[in-house]
Amino acid sequence: MTSSWNDRFSPRMAHVRASEIRELLKLLDQPDILSFAGGIPDPALFPIARIAELYGEVLAEAGDQALQYSVSEGLPALRRWIAERMTAQGAPCDEGNIIITAGSQQALDLIGKLFIGRGDAVLVERPTYMGALGAFNAYEPSYADLGGDVPAGARLAYVVPDFANPSGRTMPRREREALLARATAHDLVVIEDGAYRDLRFTGTDEPSILALDVARSGGIEAARTLYCGTFSKTLSPALRLGWVCGPRAVIDKLVLLKQGCDLHVSTINQMVAARVVAEGYEDHLERLRKHYHARASAMQAALARHMPLGVSWSKPQGGMFVWLTLPEGLDGAQLLEAALAEERVAFVPGGPFFAVDPEPNTLRLAYSLLSPADIDEGVRRLGRLIEGRLAYAGSNVARAATGRA
Amino acid sequence: MTSSWNDRFSPRMAHVRASEIRELLKLLDQPDILSFAGGIPDPALFPIARIAELYGEVLAEAGDQALQYSVSEGLPALRRWIAERMTAQGAPCDEGNIIITAGSQQALDLIGKLFIGRGDAVLVERPTYMGALGAFNAYEPSYADLGGDVPAGARLAYVVPDFANPSGRTMPRREREALLARATAHDLVVIEDGAYRDLRFTGTDEPSILALDVARSGGIEAARTLYCGTFSKTLSPALRLGWVCGPRAVIDKLVLLKQGCDLHVSTINQMVAARVVAEGYEDHLERLRKHYHARASAMQAALARHMPLGVSWSKPQGGMFVWLTLPEGLDGAQLLEAALAEERVAFVPGGPFFAVDPEPNTLRLAYSLLSPADIDEGVRRLGRLIEGRLAYAGSNVARAATGRA
Repeated sequence: MTSSWNDRFSPRMAHVRASEIRELLKLLDQPDILSFAGGIPDPALFPIARIAELYGEVLAEAGDQALQYSVSEGLPALRRWIAERMTAQGAPCDEGNIIITAGSQQALDLIGKLFIGRGDAVLVERPTYMGALGAFNAYEPSYADLGGDVPAGARLAYVVPDFANPSGRTMPRREREALLARATAHDLVVIEDGAYRDLRFTGTDEPSILALDVARSGGIEAARTLYCGTFSKTLSPALRLGWVCGPRAVIDKLVLLKQGCDLHVSTINQMVAARVVAEGYEDHLERLRKHYHARASAMQAALARHMPLGVSWSKPQGGMFVWLTLPEGLDGAQLLEAALAEERVAFVPGGPFFAVDPEPNTLRLAYSLLSPADIDEGVRRLGRLIEGRLAYAGSNVARAATGRA
Repeated sequence: MTSSWNDRFSPRMAHVRASEIRELLKLLDQPDILSFAGGIPDPALFPIARIAELYGEVLAEAGDQALQYSVSEGLPALRRWIAERMTAQGAPCDEGNIIITAGSQQALDLIGKLFIGRGDAVLVERPTYMGALGAFNAYEPSYADLGGDVPAGARLAYVVPDFANPSGRTMPRREREALLARATAHDLVVIEDGAYRDLRFTGTDEPSILALDVARSGGIEAARTLYCGTFSKTLSPALRLGWVCGPRAVIDKLVLLKQGCDLHVSTINQMVAARVVAEGYEDHLERLRKHYHARASAMQAALARHMPLGVSWSKPQGGMFVWLTLPEGLDGAQLLEAALAEERVAFVPGGPFFAVDPEPNTLRLAYSLLSPADIDEGVRRLGRLIEGRLAYAGSNVARAATGRA
């Protein structure tokens, strides 16, 4: 090339950076690492045998269709099933309100492409899901704190209201209603990321923001909320199946964008998923909830047992994550380096989960992939490491106080 | 909403329009239509039984992995196989030069996202693949004719050099070399869309533009060509599997963008495809070539038999398409309406295949999906319709000439 590749890339690439999560996923291949890193479902919960039977059935009964092109909006049977479930959960809608996407990651990308112009402000939580930032960044937004003032030019508010990734926090109902009132006042579109919603293992379901919006605005066509769902955490991430539920005027545009992006989601995977969910999805979810509840409880017990004073953490009612806050002065990214080298434990440092002004003394622990015994052992190692760092920092503080080098 | 949805969409949506192809795909569900519309592989060529066995095998042997998240660049085994094949075809490379994409449609989207800033000029053929325009449009390029002068600000040249969609035309070797020389002079990136390359049924393979570029520049890392391949036309479009082969500096950035767009292609589909192609892909292609050769020959014979004087068409050496040019004054889009209503025949009007200044008296016929007998019948009906239009236009001309109303 006459010029270097970097000179050739579009200006938007200045906003697109490598994600820590991706590099960390590669560590899963190292069997001696105890990994609290990815929000990875436990493969023990994959209905492998049944899925294998269904691939066989679908190919035997309709192989011509299963291996052929299909429409960009997604398989009608799967969209109908999702619409019925959304309806039962308080957001009456039909298949015209649903587009099937390649996981909810693609839902976030398509929504970003549809709404975000360069410099438009997106309101996000502190911390927020780094994958959403990864999707939106290519459209060159600015970010503002959902908890602060709404800046001029704000267009979108993005939230994970149930057992949030990464904080584990659930928004109470009145906070959801307040968000909708603010969104109405400032004419914001609300992106509700429901990735973990089906994984509540204690407490009572809060209504989805979409359901509250529909009740308030009189129907889904008048709503301003786009609900992003996924089968990645409940069925299998490898099928790449998620969806958006929202007003038809938005869904139609997302379909148009999806067509230009990749035509459609794998036909055969959609056909298999439509059959799996039709035969006892709620029972399957019940099994998942029990399984992750045990791990969440093991995580809470291990943290209480092994973490030194000064470390605090969230207590989620569902989902896969606990958010840790370390004493000021400790840095999650530096701790990760030491954790991998000295203790063979992995997690995700908190910094990348902040759109602006990261809090470096934070980190995310996922409890989805490890057994209760491994959770205890991993947290024990991590607690030991943090304790050592605190002692070292303490001795530095002491040295600084006495003026010695 | 306070404002209408249209006011909320990003300015880029002014460039994104509905595609005729998508609407036409829906016609496939109507069994009495003879469809020359989509570039749809014949499902009779899908290795359904073998694919069913392989889904079973993959899930039995490695279900945990097959249903789990995987890396954004794609399955190493599949990337290695593709790299070896690209190497054997004159472009020495390794798996680091390959990213797996959701069909070549996603390759075009990711390349657009990486390179195109608002207003950048993309050089395209007349006609060109409308799906490429659909992918690029969201990044707000301008377009210029590859056959004309290179405008200032031109960054990319997009070509389908083998049995092009829609023209059926193949670029001879010296035209490929001339394109590379021009690309070097103007420092353009060349996007080589090889979607139909494996489907040559007569004549001799031309070297890929990437292979010529590698030979000329000294190696793939010094090349300016990005080759987009796909299994959609040869194995199954429903698996959503394509790839880009190019310099590592570009592939790494595409991986980063892919991560933000949809994380990765379906793991299980990649594992199945890696096994299918490893066991006799070249024999499978030989079967496809014979099959489509018979249909291409039937199409040429039918056109010669049924088309009225004044209609001309291309004679492809591979691929799935014939490009028809009607006498001036006839309009492909109007003809389609009549063809559906009066003759139950479908095709794609030529207009949408032009980035600028469409030639309305053109249309694309795909011969991939119909039997030789149906091809003859469909072309007979279409010829009859065109003949009627010509007679009507002729009588109008006659009326105009004699001054009667």
